Amino acid sequence: MAVRYELIKECKRTKARLGRLHTPHGVIDTPVFMPVGTQATVKAMTPEELKEMNAEIILSNTYHLFLRPGAELIREAGGLHRFMNWDRPILTDSGGFQVFSLGPLRKISEDGVTFKSHLDGSTHFMSPERATEVQTALGSDIIMAFDECTPYPSTREYTVAALERTTRWAARCKEAHIRDDQALFGIVQGGMYKDLRERSARELLEIGFPGFGIGGLSVGEPKPLMYEMLDYTIPCLPGDKPRYLMGVGSPDCLIEGVMRGVDMFDCVLPTRIARNGTVMTSSGRVVIKNAENARDFRPLDEECTCYTCRNYSRAYIRHLFKAEEILGLRLTTIHNLYFLLTLMTKVRRAITEDSLPELRNDFFAKYGYELEDF
Amino acid sequence: MAVRYELIKECKRTKARLGRLHTPHGVIDTPVFMPVGTQATVKAMTPEELKEMNAEIILSNTYHLFLRPGAELIREAGGLHRFMNWDRPILTDSGGFQVFSLGPLRKISEDGVTFKSHLDGSTHFMSPERATEVQTALGSDIIMAFDECTPYPSTREYTVAALERTTRWAARCKEAHIRDDQALFGIVQGGMYKDLRERSARELLEIGFPGFGIGGLSVGEPKPLMYEMLDYTIPCLPGDKPRYLMGVGSPDCLIEGVMRGVDMFDCVLPTRIARNGTVMTSSGRVVIKNAENARDFRPLDEECTCYTCRNYSRAYIRHLFKAEEILGLRLTTIHNLYFLLTLMTKVRRAITEDSLPELRNDFFAKYGYELEDF
Repeated sequence: MAVRYELIKECKRTKARLGRLHTPHGVIDTPVFMPVGTQATVKAMTPEELKEMNAEIILSNTYHLFLRPGAELIREAGGLHRFMNWDRPILTDSGGFQVFSLGPLRKISEDGVTFKSHLDGSTHFMSPERATEVQTALGSDIIMAFDECTPYPSTREYTVAALERTTRWAARCKEAHIRDDQALFGIVQGGMYKDLRERSARELLEIGFPGFGIGGLSVGEPKPLMYEMLDYTIPCLPGDKPRYLMGVGSPDCLIEGVMRGVDMFDCVLPTRIARNGTVMTSSGRVVIKNAENARDFRPLDEECTCYTCRNYSRAYIRHLFKAEEILGLRLTTIHNLYFLLTLMTKVRRAITEDSLPELRNDFFAKYGYELEDF
Repeated sequence: MAVRYELIKECKRTKARLGRLHTPHGVIDTPVFMPVGTQATVKAMTPEELKEMNAEIILSNTYHLFLRPGAELIREAGGLHRFMNWDRPILTDSGGFQVFSLGPLRKISEDGVTFKSHLDGSTHFMSPERATEVQTALGSDIIMAFDECTPYPSTREYTVAALERTTRWAARCKEAHIRDDQALFGIVQGGMYKDLRERSARELLEIGFPGFGIGGLSVGEPKPLMYEMLDYTIPCLPGDKPRYLMGVGSPDCLIEGVMRGVDMFDCVLPTRIARNGTVMTSSGRVVIKNAENARDFRPLDEECTCYTCRNYSRAYIRHLFKAEEILGLRLTTIHNLYFLLTLMTKVRRAITEDSLPELRNDFFAKYGYELEDF
């Protein structure tokens, strides 16, 4: 088995659980946040920097790698791990989300999706078989089924059709899945309909997968609705398999997701806002370019022990951003990833100590979630 | 004395010399190449990365720091070393070169130069006294006199006038120089006129400085002419003081400069071309974006032991450049700086072993200097 989920502990006061995900490239402590390396690099970071901040697994995007540099080239390089010099676990998505997001540039049939590259307009075809083949060539530890992500809002009719296709395509992905050292996860869809979430989970369970993505959330719906959908969906999933909430990465959503039983998360949020000069701190969001930071010689976050906070002032980082220096966004990226990864370490410790609700309340009070949001 | 030059050995076969420059922030082995950190950061690098590649001293630019974030802010931060988290020696230029390069945006008088900022068009004044004050606030270990760099080509008349002003301004800089923990270097001008180079050196020697910049070279003249000027200038300088050839940094010029008695160099070349995807290797220049590198899984330079060459292939770095990923230019910047710094280590060893001419010939033959140039 490519991936084995080991349940360590279930929280007595919430649905949170502590686990270990055993993969060919190492063991991951869950709940876990996965930094995103879309184009075979977590933007602006080296693998060593990611390891120093305790990143245990990263995500990379099949759609982007398929188009550039191409899966065959990465296979020739010895696989994605070797190509990008990352020897810890990698999860790749299926490209479904990106392909469906192309809007007028794609055409869907039962067979798959014909689409035009966002890079050069060239025409390509992606299907459950092709997405699985590409991920086979990449050699990631966890690969995802090719699904149809329902946008928000969607009619019940559309949501049912997408769900049914997702189920049929999941079966085809499983059929196309050949590498024993890779685990194929199915993806639960069903939009914002309770019974459709239950149906999607049930159908995927019948096919059988070693883990489950929860897709179609964090697509524009209000957060309470997302939490409600998690409350419906997770009880439908087996306790001995990991649950991965796709595309979610704000601190509040991580905590709320964990409390509802989510084991894995990924999101570009921490790295993307970092490159724009916005950082997460224990007392809320800081926009580094703001004039108030010009002569502020304190670190980004006085409670933080990341490389950036140990060595640089807000004034210096602001200068770097004003001067458009690359080191600026390196420092904020390091800080934001460290902030989320450290938050997850605290979350795991809180599950161990049965104090997750207190961690949540303390965090939210200091962070000021009533007042602001990412 | 802020800076003391210790002559370790003179080459028997060339004018090269091995030395140590003692500064308040550590000892520098010479001949040395100084990476350039224009805006209080060596572009795309952390201080730790620079240390890992054995950078002993960096250069920063007074003109840029004066405009942004301002010298007073850096003084408040505890000086440039602390502001940018670099605890090894720093040399700052005077801003003269940049101010004179502004062309129509500047007006020169005997008192100083009035100029408009390239950032926002605001009007500023720089003079020998002001340039020295700014560098005093920055707290660099070596500060440079405010000079007038003669462009190439220049008439004898203009060159004489610039030389004379440079001498008068050097005296004013010395007068304004107050910190014992900073060494003020004079700058030899004189364009491409042998007797004017000699005169400039003589006049600066009369004022008295602990080290000398050689300015107005590498400003567009043919390299043989630059070497000829070095042959004239260096014998006019005292043997117990360091000699710094300003703005020079191609591998061939470093070697040729050392053989003529130069101790210090700086240049944006390795970092600038790196960001455009051009790397220096032991067998010549490589343009990483070229199609021939698409499936080349060898390192940039098979003889190199830098972080980049130990961990990444040409194919991967090319992918990063094609995908406009920041890690790409980080990796090429690391490689190019390591390449030049390692070349200087080899040069120092060759002086020790009396084999500098052989190193030069071997390097040039492999690098292919007959065929190409940076």
